Amino acid sequence: MSQLTISEIYKAAEVLQNVARHPKLIGVTKLNPDAEVYLKPENLQKTGSFKLRGAYYKISQLSDEEKSRGVVACSAGNHAQGVALGATHNGIKSVICLPAGAPLSKIEATKALGAEVCLVPGVYDDAYKKALELRDKHGYTLVHPFDDPLVIAGQGTIGLEIIQEMPDVDAVIVPVGGGGLISGVAFAIKTIKPSVKIYGVQAEGAPSMVKSIECDEKIMLNEVMTIADGIAVKQPGDNTFEMCKKYVDEIVTVTDDEVAAAILTLIEQQKLVAEGAGAVSVAAAMFNKVPIKGKKVVCIVSGGNIDVTSLNRVIMRGLVKNGRDCTISLILSDKPGQLSKVCSVVGDLGANILSVEHKRNSSNTQISGCKLHMEVETRNHEHINAIKQGLRDAGFTVVD
Amino acid sequence: MSQLTISEIYKAAEVLQNVARHPKLIGVTKLNPDAEVYLKPENLQKTGSFKLRGAYYKISQLSDEEKSRGVVACSAGNHAQGVALGATHNGIKSVICLPAGAPLSKIEATKALGAEVCLVPGVYDDAYKKALELRDKHGYTLVHPFDDPLVIAGQGTIGLEIIQEMPDVDAVIVPVGGGGLISGVAFAIKTIKPSVKIYGVQAEGAPSMVKSIECDEKIMLNEVMTIADGIAVKQPGDNTFEMCKKYVDEIVTVTDDEVAAAILTLIEQQKLVAEGAGAVSVAAAMFNKVPIKGKKVVCIVSGGNIDVTSLNRVIMRGLVKNGRDCTISLILSDKPGQLSKVCSVVGDLGANILSVEHKRNSSNTQISGCKLHMEVETRNHEHINAIKQGLRDAGFTVVD
Repeated sequence: MSQLTISEIYKAAEVLQNVARHPKLIGVTKLNPDAEVYLKPENLQKTGSFKLRGAYYKISQLSDEEKSRGVVACSAGNHAQGVALGATHNGIKSVICLPAGAPLSKIEATKALGAEVCLVPGVYDDAYKKALELRDKHGYTLVHPFDDPLVIAGQGTIGLEIIQEMPDVDAVIVPVGGGGLISGVAFAIKTIKPSVKIYGVQAEGAPSMVKSIECDEKIMLNEVMTIADGIAVKQPGDNTFEMCKKYVDEIVTVTDDEVAAAILTLIEQQKLVAEGAGAVSVAAAMFNKVPIKGKKVVCIVSGGNIDVTSLNRVIMRGLVKNGRDCTISLILSDKPGQLSKVCSVVGDLGANILSVEHKRNSSNTQISGCKLHMEVETRNHEHINAIKQGLRDAGFTVVD
Repeated sequence: MSQLTISEIYKAAEVLQNVARHPKLIGVTKLNPDAEVYLKPENLQKTGSFKLRGAYYKISQLSDEEKSRGVVACSAGNHAQGVALGATHNGIKSVICLPAGAPLSKIEATKALGAEVCLVPGVYDDAYKKALELRDKHGYTLVHPFDDPLVIAGQGTIGLEIIQEMPDVDAVIVPVGGGGLISGVAFAIKTIKPSVKIYGVQAEGAPSMVKSIECDEKIMLNEVMTIADGIAVKQPGDNTFEMCKKYVDEIVTVTDDEVAAAILTLIEQQKLVAEGAGAVSVAAAMFNKVPIKGKKVVCIVSGGNIDVTSLNRVIMRGLVKNGRDCTISLILSDKPGQLSKVCSVVGDLGANILSVEHKRNSSNTQISGCKLHMEVETRNHEHINAIKQGLRDAGFTVVD
């Protein structure tokens, strides 16, 4: 890799000055009571993610001859939109290879930004092969989603903005997929102020950078499985792997349930929509995955492109994880007035019953008993425990 | 009413300088192709709505003696949180009367901001009576949600911010419930630059200000029914009615489906969560309810406090309204291969089938026929029509 320099990142910031948005930090008081937490909301970036920065800067630096031939990229998501907008703004042609099963909304968004979309049967790897094929055939420049020094320089402008707006920041928490974002941010911040801690966050189901650093060599995962699809990357890049080793203090993982809880918290408390990949940094801060006690911390919320149908499911999971929705199962003796008694216990404890399923014939109840399942809206896990205890105190058998 | 002056609004801006957030305008290219539309995202305000501004300013202007006695307010929503935070910041006691059926999340949020919550059996009017009772009994000052010159002055600071950030704005579109927000914004902007148009938007199911202006007297609606619960107000205030007549160019209404479509659009395109009341301005711009062709327009997104369980339902309605989700019903002859043929027609036209219900015995089909209901993910209304036509061309009977 041609060595990345801080002046390259300053140059990228200049190029992006009137192109990208520069979302201000947002202070969030309730996210973690022991730390002073701020968000860098790149979900409010044009195209809904930080990817625009790197893709745009890369494209802007092509030679006139390269520009005249156009660019190609492979992505089912944010990188596609970044490249499409970057190319269209620069007046050049872009072809985006997408796996044929990509969500309709992402295909439409990419087309709307002026790209030619090439749907490839199969999965991401097939689409990537097709992109290489088109590059070789038509002389397009391939815009890599992360492993390119110019792309990394573009993402690094986020680091500049953070340190400029908050010179006394103690730590920055950054989502990690292929590692382009954290490489740029860590390089920029560590160059300017080496004492700032840089923490990376991966999904538990896609820990490629974590494992690679553990083994001190680039690991290829067999499969990745997470709701944070934007960072479900099987293998780090050569450049990003080296930069993470050198500039990142620690990389941790979060579970899908923690991510769902973070997405829900951002919606309810900040009115911001984050995608799974964008919320892993917030999840790490919420669930104390990194040592931030007493510190001034910025979480980069890297993007917000979540399918609205997925959003519904994530909201439900987040409510359960945060103790705001739970299912309580009871065995009742089959005599009149039991259900009403249950409802009054629950109501008196300040919870709302959302649904009730009352079944007389259940295979694992006694002949005179029946099973009751209730979905209940609650305040938190302590509240759930209090309700279960209240039901037990009233003589009911709570099934866990 | 003691006459509102522009210097009162400047004073409010000074008081709110380090208290309220001052969200920057966000340009939105795709909202209405014929206008240059910007959002003023007050859903990103502390407490999730603009209400903080008026409540805080009102409370800050109380005498020391009034402050020592505390304040009372009645609200099931945004005003409650504004008053609670305003009082707590000023170090004074606040009591908020809420109807007992208010959502748990709003009760919790109000308590978390330091208010004492008084749950009153019944509806809003009962809670309001209780608030008056507490005022008389304890000497609290009642902080009215809209009909108070100081509250209106606080909301007016949004008008100042808009005109300062975008001096060449042509029109501002403002949600209208009781009329506090639009009164302040219209007064501020018309005073500084009378040529700017101010349009108000109410929900079709709660058009109290529209009707009142039509009749040239304050009308009390018998009932209000809308998903925009934050502006479901039965009667304008005395002050706000007079100010709307004087300073507002036109007030229009939008339907609940239009509001749902606007909420969905804000989530998908801007990654912003708006509540129904907050999105009516955006709905008015999207569906051309006001004359904005060729104009530079700011929509005030007044708040984002929507219950996440409501959010799920709203998203579904929005998808249907925007032609992104539809149910297609067909009569099939009951012979092998029919379903597969239907699926291939739909798939070839680029739509995704989300669910299929295939019923052999339906009361209104012939004995040899069966009915098929499909939920289909589509691009827009033209796409839906193309699919229906495609099915007809393939020999199927589409039931409308």
